[in-house]
Amino acid sequence: MSPHDRTLPPGAVVLLPVVGVPEVVAGDDLAALLAAALAPLGGLRDGDVLVVSSKVVSKALGLREDVPAEDRQELVLRHSRRVVAERATTTGTTRIVEAVAGPVMAAAGLDTSNTGPTGGVLVLPADPDAAATDLHASLRQHGAVPPGARVAVVLSDTAGRAWRQGQVDLALGSHGLLVLDDLRGGTDADGRDLAVTARAVADEVASAADLVKGKAGGVAAALVRGLGPHLGEGPGARSLVRTGPGDWFGLGRAEAVRAALGAAPATAQAREVGVPAAAPEPDDARGARAVRLALLGHQDARVLGSPAEGYAVHSPDPVLTGRVAARLEVALAGEQVLARVEVRRG
Amino acid sequence: MSPHDRTLPPGAVVLLPVVGVPEVVAGDDLAALLAAALAPLGGLRDGDVLVVSSKVVSKALGLREDVPAEDRQELVLRHSRRVVAERATTTGTTRIVEAVAGPVMAAAGLDTSNTGPTGGVLVLPADPDAAATDLHASLRQHGAVPPGARVAVVLSDTAGRAWRQGQVDLALGSHGLLVLDDLRGGTDADGRDLAVTARAVADEVASAADLVKGKAGGVAAALVRGLGPHLGEGPGARSLVRTGPGDWFGLGRAEAVRAALGAAPATAQAREVGVPAAAPEPDDARGARAVRLALLGHQDARVLGSPAEGYAVHSPDPVLTGRVAARLEVALAGEQVLARVEVRRG
Repeated sequence: MSPHDRTLPPGAVVLLPVVGVPEVVAGDDLAALLAAALAPLGGLRDGDVLVVSSKVVSKALGLREDVPAEDRQELVLRHSRRVVAERATTTGTTRIVEAVAGPVMAAAGLDTSNTGPTGGVLVLPADPDAAATDLHASLRQHGAVPPGARVAVVLSDTAGRAWRQGQVDLALGSHGLLVLDDLRGGTDADGRDLAVTARAVADEVASAADLVKGKAGGVAAALVRGLGPHLGEGPGARSLVRTGPGDWFGLGRAEAVRAALGAAPATAQAREVGVPAAAPEPDDARGARAVRLALLGHQDARVLGSPAEGYAVHSPDPVLTGRVAARLEVALAGEQVLARVEVRRG
Repeated sequence: MSPHDRTLPPGAVVLLPVVGVPEVVAGDDLAALLAAALAPLGGLRDGDVLVVSSKVVSKALGLREDVPAEDRQELVLRHSRRVVAERATTTGTTRIVEAVAGPVMAAAGLDTSNTGPTGGVLVLPADPDAAATDLHASLRQHGAVPPGARVAVVLSDTAGRAWRQGQVDLALGSHGLLVLDDLRGGTDADGRDLAVTARAVADEVASAADLVKGKAGGVAAALVRGLGPHLGEGPGARSLVRTGPGDWFGLGRAEAVRAALGAAPATAQAREVGVPAAAPEPDDARGARAVRLALLGHQDARVLGSPAEGYAVHSPDPVLTGRVAARLEVALAGEQVLARVEVRRG
């Protein structure tokens, strides 16, 4: 124990930057580099959580793809299970996806900043929990984990959130940490039931570690000291991913409506209709997209008009006219355009 | 400076639980209670961030409503700007809302656990940034902030996230902290542009503080020591709320489709159609809800069938028949039910 531990009050947690890890390249022994950088901090001790940026793990594993900028979107899709939302930008299409690596995040976590002197795109490990376990085993092989000491490893990555500005770090992979502190069924300090609280400890650890790692400083890892009670065997960080029926936000607002009308994200139909822009768009542009969406697969109908003057739908077949009118109303609502839709009979 | 500060390496951050705050009741001088509890930690120092659970702030401000359980949903709506998603549960309706207090969160942040011996429901301050500023001023008045020292106050609250299991703490209100560390336009360690990174420091601070506060332990506050560079004057935590055009998830997946068909969350139309259940539902239940949604405002049409056998739509008016058929297709897609929709002509 170093002297400062004796002077910290009980319950304190210390976040320590792990400095001195050199630029990592493919094939590097990351555990050896981390062990050396940890030495000035007294090395790893029982109860320590070592939080490592997924970026350096990807670098060490050589998970780099040198694709031209115009192929980046294809690369994102290749590292995605499905697309949650997409918006057109001046440089292409920004997609929020469920990454193969686990989390729902922008661009499947592909990383083009701080990728090292040769540039390229860093991709996430496909199984981040396994990567954390491997790194833990490698640290142990290097003698960096004292005998009998419980030490956890967390792979962190940076992600945006729905409804919040800015990014925070979350736990992409983990080994040896109880990622979820499930207080459901427990009792609160007043003796009443704690109904629905389960703390995502691993994500809070990753966010805390980011406070000392920083983004631009090139600090690849942080040591979180004092979380002993949260260490133990259990599911990895992938278990924190919530998708499927329990996920109420499986598609963005616009994408939910577009998909229900036949233009799911990242399909030919979505491209044909046109993808909403990330920047604010005039009513006319949104209205024109709604018309194309309404007519998707219903090309025999005709739609005239604009948001300002309203729309008129007609076709040789009144059933088709009714169909397209209803589809247009839905599409306009999805585009948040207020406009009247009329039907021309006969 | 206490002795341990001299032994911590540069860049370290320390998370300290602020223990010994007694049960807070309406009218209590929270700043005085916090100042007393901070004394064993050496009091507040330059660069400190004091993270206080919004729960104790609400208690001190008397923001408690004693409503019977059956009126809780009405109370949630009163503390909401709008409803983002809603699901039926065995005990009522769970709603994710944009709270008057700022964030998008379940039940407007209403709190029925650890509310103190008298129970009741704690509500969030309507202006959490102002509450943080008031608390800071009050701490200063009590002499708890040394002359010339920069000290930040963060009000934290617990919230779920889209796509992630478990809750984390976020910054509900703040004073004196640079809540967003905007690295956009900066340069990364390799000299390339950092395109889109803006770190939500205040949220990371709140999450870090939760690691020492815990949920069931009754620790009302934490001191985060070592974040001096992030202190300064700027917008409060409300500026981290992302709603409006920049929010791609302004409605849940099901709600986006339902709203586009005329049954926005928390409306009479949504109740008439029926609110999706939080628990998995059989195809027939979801199909029946899709039919009611398709017929909303179009009661002259008739729909027969089921997901298994497909649906048939007919009415005296072929335009109406077409309308309802298209609406039903969209509604079924919104319910994620695969079923054929036929039109009966004549």
